[in-house]
Amino acid sequence: MKAGYLQFAPRYLQPEANRETVAELVTDLDADLLVLPELFPSGYYFKSQSDLEQVAEPIPEGETTQALLQWASDTGTTFVAGLAEREGGAIFNSAVLVRPNQTTETYRKVHLFYEETERFDPGDLGFPVFEASTRSGQTYRLGIMVCFDWYFPEAARSLALNGADVIAHPSNLVLPHCPDAMPVRARENHLYSITANRFGTETKGDEELTFIGMSEICGPTGEILRRASRDEVEIGIESFDPHDARERHINRFNDTLGDRRPETYVTQ
Amino acid sequence: MKAGYLQFAPRYLQPEANRETVAELVTDLDADLLVLPELFPSGYYFKSQSDLEQVAEPIPEGETTQALLQWASDTGTTFVAGLAEREGGAIFNSAVLVRPNQTTETYRKVHLFYEETERFDPGDLGFPVFEASTRSGQTYRLGIMVCFDWYFPEAARSLALNGADVIAHPSNLVLPHCPDAMPVRARENHLYSITANRFGTETKGDEELTFIGMSEICGPTGEILRRASRDEVEIGIESFDPHDARERHINRFNDTLGDRRPETYVTQ
Repeated sequence: MKAGYLQFAPRYLQPEANRETVAELVTDLDADLLVLPELFPSGYYFKSQSDLEQVAEPIPEGETTQALLQWASDTGTTFVAGLAEREGGAIFNSAVLVRPNQTTETYRKVHLFYEETERFDPGDLGFPVFEASTRSGQTYRLGIMVCFDWYFPEAARSLALNGADVIAHPSNLVLPHCPDAMPVRARENHLYSITANRFGTETKGDEELTFIGMSEICGPTGEILRRASRDEVEIGIESFDPHDARERHINRFNDTLGDRRPETYVTQ
Repeated sequence: MKAGYLQFAPRYLQPEANRETVAELVTDLDADLLVLPELFPSGYYFKSQSDLEQVAEPIPEGETTQALLQWASDTGTTFVAGLAEREGGAIFNSAVLVRPNQTTETYRKVHLFYEETERFDPGDLGFPVFEASTRSGQTYRLGIMVCFDWYFPEAARSLALNGADVIAHPSNLVLPHCPDAMPVRARENHLYSITANRFGTETKGDEELTFIGMSEICGPTGEILRRASRDEVEIGIESFDPHDARERHINRFNDTLGDRRPETYVTQ
């Protein structure tokens, strides 16, 4: 399959302009799976709760998911993209999976970072894994985590144990460590990961957040297949067989998931 | 505290010579904690089960633990060292903690690598954390894991949840990835780690294992405080306050262990 990330710098509180930017970039897309950054329609560092409320959208009725459905239909590509999701009185930092067959799935960020803890509701859907398929009809299992979830090994591990071949990882990274940690996540779970990050800077009063770019595709033995620049728009695509993730033998004696010994682990 | 590793190349099946090598190296030791490699008295790649049986020792009665007790007494240093442990009819790939006050504790390797799976019994003591103290009387909490345990995030996580400030990590690494993974383990659990590796090559028939050296000390924000060469004898010591591990706030909203959401994790 051909799969990768779209890295760009969303403009704060300009969802129409951001969707237009993406729409232009994906016009001639040749990919089975494309991952977009966290909160790509809205930007990240909300100056107020009302700013966030203004851009939160229902899934799939909102304009962003509708745009993604159109792009998926036009290109045959499966998209995973981050956005603020409104559901009833709650707002989640979500990622939506949109298939060319016009079905959608939702992941809601479990580990909220920094002021997100005051703005968003914590994800309440766990770490589900979804079936997806390439344009040629190969099916594979796709898990989603969002940005700061990388910090907690339990996130990627939960997706692996739920059967993920590929992790889509929409992000707005500010800490510098994630690009060196994702190869470890990919290796310890023997799967592919696609981190789609943004770049640029956002401010709120005296505070400034700079996003580090460096979107990344990692393979199941921990190799970095592709890493983006720190500050340039880029669609990065790699070709791989997602089923390679399923052969989890490290050598003839050891297996990445099979050698776990849950009865010895502390989990609370 | 002053803590670190002793890196050397044990000679196969020569426990007396290997203990003598270490005895000379630690004569003028100035450290509160020193970690030695996995299976340091015996070497690693056993040519037969009888070779292993020949060097397996009870803890603390065996000659190796007795030597460690002497060194701890002479230097005031707490040691953590890997050795083949015989207990009844079982043989474990263990690490012994030896305090200057002449008490000992044992960890038995949970995740066995490669032919170890046929030679050793799997560890049956879980991931306990032990109290230790510096020469000046500061107490801290010390966890142990051995070599391949690094591959499974649950090992270091279990030690962190059991309260470890420092992880001692006796190793005989052959895979190249561990030196880049231990900073991630240290950061995701916000603690210190000390990997004591060996170097050199051992053979069994046509098979050859080369150990990668690169012993390493990591700090709680994922910094590599010290890394050894690939092929030289080295005692590497760093000064740090083990209680720094206990301030686990990433920022004013996030906490490394406190932000875990076990109710969302898959663990089986």
